[in-house]
Amino acid sequence: MKFSTIPSAQTVAHYCKLYGIQDIVISPGSRNAPLTISFTENNYFNCYSIVDERCAAFFALGMAQQKQKPVAVLCTSGSALLNYYPAIAEAFYSDIPLVVLSADRPSYKIDIGDGQTIRQDHVFDRHIGYSVNLKLDVIHATETIKNQGKGLISDTIPIETQQAAVELFNTQELEKAIKTAIFSSAPVHINIPFEEPLYGTTLSPNKQQNNELLKPVEESLNTLDDYVSLWNSAPRKLVLVGVNNPNSVEQKYLEVLANDDSVVVLTETTSNLHHPNFFPSIDSLIAPIEKSSHKEELFTQLQPDILLTFGGLIVSKKIKSFLRKYKPKHHWHVNNKKAYDTFFCLTKHFKVSENTFFASLFKNHVSVKSDYYPFWSKVKLGYEQRRDNYVKNIPFSDMLAFSITAKLIPEKYQLHLANSSTVRYAQLVDIDKSITVFCNRGTSGIDGSTSTAIGASIYCEEPTLLITGDLSFLYDSNALWNRYLKSDFRIIVINNDGGGIFRILPGQEDTENFETFFETRHTINIEDVCKTYQLEYELATNEFELENNLRKFFLKSAKPKLLEIKTPRLINNKILLSYFDFIS
Amino acid sequence: MKFSTIPSAQTVAHYCKLYGIQDIVISPGSRNAPLTISFTENNYFNCYSIVDERCAAFFALGMAQQKQKPVAVLCTSGSALLNYYPAIAEAFYSDIPLVVLSADRPSYKIDIGDGQTIRQDHVFDRHIGYSVNLKLDVIHATETIKNQGKGLISDTIPIETQQAAVELFNTQELEKAIKTAIFSSAPVHINIPFEEPLYGTTLSPNKQQNNELLKPVEESLNTLDDYVSLWNSAPRKLVLVGVNNPNSVEQKYLEVLANDDSVVVLTETTSNLHHPNFFPSIDSLIAPIEKSSHKEELFTQLQPDILLTFGGLIVSKKIKSFLRKYKPKHHWHVNNKKAYDTFFCLTKHFKVSENTFFASLFKNHVSVKSDYYPFWSKVKLGYEQRRDNYVKNIPFSDMLAFSITAKLIPEKYQLHLANSSTVRYAQLVDIDKSITVFCNRGTSGIDGSTSTAIGASIYCEEPTLLITGDLSFLYDSNALWNRYLKSDFRIIVINNDGGGIFRILPGQEDTENFETFFETRHTINIEDVCKTYQLEYELATNEFELENNLRKFFLKSAKPKLLEIKTPRLINNKILLSYFDFIS
Repeated sequence: MKFSTIPSAQTVAHYCKLYGIQDIVISPGSRNAPLTISFTENNYFNCYSIVDERCAAFFALGMAQQKQKPVAVLCTSGSALLNYYPAIAEAFYSDIPLVVLSADRPSYKIDIGDGQTIRQDHVFDRHIGYSVNLKLDVIHATETIKNQGKGLISDTIPIETQQAAVELFNTQELEKAIKTAIFSSAPVHINIPFEEPLYGTTLSPNKQQNNELLKPVEESLNTLDDYVSLWNSAPRKLVLVGVNNPNSVEQKYLEVLANDDSVVVLTETTSNLHHPNFFPSIDSLIAPIEKSSHKEELFTQLQPDILLTFGGLIVSKKIKSFLRKYKPKHHWHVNNKKAYDTFFCLTKHFKVSENTFFASLFKNHVSVKSDYYPFWSKVKLGYEQRRDNYVKNIPFSDMLAFSITAKLIPEKYQLHLANSSTVRYAQLVDIDKSITVFCNRGTSGIDGSTSTAIGASIYCEEPTLLITGDLSFLYDSNALWNRYLKSDFRIIVINNDGGGIFRILPGQEDTENFETFFETRHTINIEDVCKTYQLEYELATNEFELENNLRKFFLKSAKPKLLEIKTPRLINNKILLSYFDFIS
Repeated sequence: MKFSTIPSAQTVAHYCKLYGIQDIVISPGSRNAPLTISFTENNYFNCYSIVDERCAAFFALGMAQQKQKPVAVLCTSGSALLNYYPAIAEAFYSDIPLVVLSADRPSYKIDIGDGQTIRQDHVFDRHIGYSVNLKLDVIHATETIKNQGKGLISDTIPIETQQAAVELFNTQELEKAIKTAIFSSAPVHINIPFEEPLYGTTLSPNKQQNNELLKPVEESLNTLDDYVSLWNSAPRKLVLVGVNNPNSVEQKYLEVLANDDSVVVLTETTSNLHHPNFFPSIDSLIAPIEKSSHKEELFTQLQPDILLTFGGLIVSKKIKSFLRKYKPKHHWHVNNKKAYDTFFCLTKHFKVSENTFFASLFKNHVSVKSDYYPFWSKVKLGYEQRRDNYVKNIPFSDMLAFSITAKLIPEKYQLHLANSSTVRYAQLVDIDKSITVFCNRGTSGIDGSTSTAIGASIYCEEPTLLITGDLSFLYDSNALWNRYLKSDFRIIVINNDGGGIFRILPGQEDTENFETFFETRHTINIEDVCKTYQLEYELATNEFELENNLRKFFLKSAKPKLLEIKTPRLINNKILLSYFDFIS
């Protein structure tokens, strides 16, 4: 085992180990050499090399999403760091502990015209859990003085500027950042300046202090009595679940919700919650009401007394629009960190885990007699049947491709969905409950879905499937530029030749400007991309080919595989919009 | 001509036109539809569609670098915007007027769990000339009230939150941002919230006010008498030029500098200044001194009384290290915007253009008798001869590839260099003075060189050549994903299988960790990338193939072309380091 000669590099690595940050995604550079050496020469760490920092950060995000533990990214100084920002914002809104380690020059080298130097400190402060800007380590500075026998670090730089850049390495700040990542599930930024020489190694590290590790304490729930009696007397309770990790809510609580006639539970594919009595396709419920001549009446009938939400962000725009207009009397959100006032009527934030909340809420649970669930259950049966009929009769299209694909994904797969059409279509089809589903809904960007899925696959025992569109796939093609694609990794690209979402939105027109600036058609051949990054490639252009291909696609293979599904650009939107007419 | 129905979108487009911002690089999205419509439906604007915002911003940067006028980028809300950051930082440090237009949701939709929503306002404040966060346009809000007949904009959102988000559209702030871009050559960020509906169009726009346009006033130069007499009496004056636009300094001033024995002018390829008496390969001058047994004596002999600098950042690390140690008595920097204290000894910032400065300085110019230039001129002759001999005898390598290539680039080409090995090797070879040279030295990132070169080629009458390394090329491969590659665009990729720069730096070792985490070897075939993006591909693996290929490479062709030069990974660094020994 070798160590960097720079004590602050040793210290950062030491604290990462102390707090169980084991995975380090490294982008190449010279300024970060002290940390690259410290991590890669220590067997405790699993190090990954990814050149494009944008991909590296999303890769780390995917890993952290699955492990539910901090994962670190490490880069050199300069604009390299800024390429992390899209993933940092996603981590910020999705509560994922991403630890950003950036090497920097000493502060007196900032803004004096040195190369690869920007203002790194606090550069992500709009979207970060905690930012630390460390100074040059005084131990290192002292060592360098001893070696040089004059000056402080360098005899060419004024002593005062050097002094201002040096202090006792602030381990308290370093620890605070790491703890924020762990206990608040937030991205954090640790900026660490290094002075040359950067490549020195030693076999004996400095002595490190081991501070006492803190454990998080979940806030206790004060008596729920008032809320319990509200809950136990309200005849219409709507439970709406956003992005949610699999198995995070105990089954017994789900059963209580599922078997209470006064409760309707709306889920999305990213909720990872399943019960025959739940409503998994929110838009299929809401769209027919929007189109109904009894719209007001039906919405009033759906309007809950209590809206209970948990999980992260909601995909369905229709449910947001409905709840903002037909506001519940009470909106409670359960989350041990934060509550968004998504519907402008939040009345209570229960700052605990879902299980803690339900344990209290259901202590003296009373099922309320109500026709809320029975009524909407019948409605659901209706549109589900109509959907099945509709899908049987549509031509090959995005919607049919999703429907066929969803049926043929093997059990227990980890499924990643890209933004934006992909995750929306996925809401309309049934996905087996053994399949776990993920999507970057924190910022809903198209920028890092492939990298996230690849990162998420690393520690997953089951195979991973990414379903993505052609634009998101091409946007993040650098995701494939690394050595970490497992042979059981699978990608399905639904290629509708551009941003199909824009044909769905109002305002689309068949003009050249629309095709160029909204849809953004392209001439890139996905097969060529596969060849570049050494993936096996399959193509399906109709129903028959798709079913045939899918049956072989998930079999074991020597290399990762990509299946391109080409759908007709001009009819996809019509089929989707007709679907909502048909089920109404 | 159509207009968005949203007045603030009309206003932004109107002011862009008013101030001559004609080029708009648009990434697809829905929230930015009002602006996309406003720009694309107006013939005044040249609109470009680029999906990946990271590439879009560098493309715009390249365009603005050539036009020396602001170019705008436009994107939708959410993480899309963050992908602009690497190019914004480059623009910030390279003084390029990049106008960032981001569509946003109204402020009451931020941080309440809406999709594709982040904290966009002031997100680039560490590296921006000016940031404006506009509010919802009150005219639009009023119109919407009229149409809806109730509430302010929406009847589902509390009136107070809506009121706080609306104000008279602030054209003063908008103008201030645009003027900063123009008159300070800086990137600026204009964040514009839009409320749905986003796609409405009208044939008759609102009436726009035309404010009086301001012109920048160059600061006048107070009498230079004191400085002139210092200049006219100092026997050793070193002129060091950083990144500099072609033809920005009048030839007559260059002649004065070139023909004064008390003046040594050091240039880099990115200085775009040429004279037989100038010293274009700084490292070839300094390295032999560093290695000499008379080091102290020679450096003292090179140490100037006055150091005069102009232009942007300096590539050579050796000259920085020398000047920081052997500080001049006076360091004057000429720039009409800013002066970096790169050598920790800046004594005077002349805040004017170079031509204004030289006009004053040389009004009563006296050539000082000195052996400063004659002495170093002889030294130059020596190392130039030794370099020629050295290059004749080295095996095929990065250095030989550069040397051969530099000789065969046709006259008047626009040459773009990527970071980091590329720009450093380019300092060691002669490049014809008719060739203009550019490199993103503001942040010296490897992230956007290809996009920048493509953007720079758009309005260039002469053909453009980009020389890049394999890592920078792959990093920015999305640069090729657009319709704007001209058939005379040329790329040369020097493929040394990873980051060759790391083999040059001290500390390299032949270990697996070095190859994985520093050098970052890869298995990607550049030819496959060319196929994907429809470029013609050529390969050279030795001197003979390279010369042969280069003679055809620059001929007219139907498609843009890429020439891959494969060099032997393990010997490149040795040949470069031996070069400095050989010329010493």
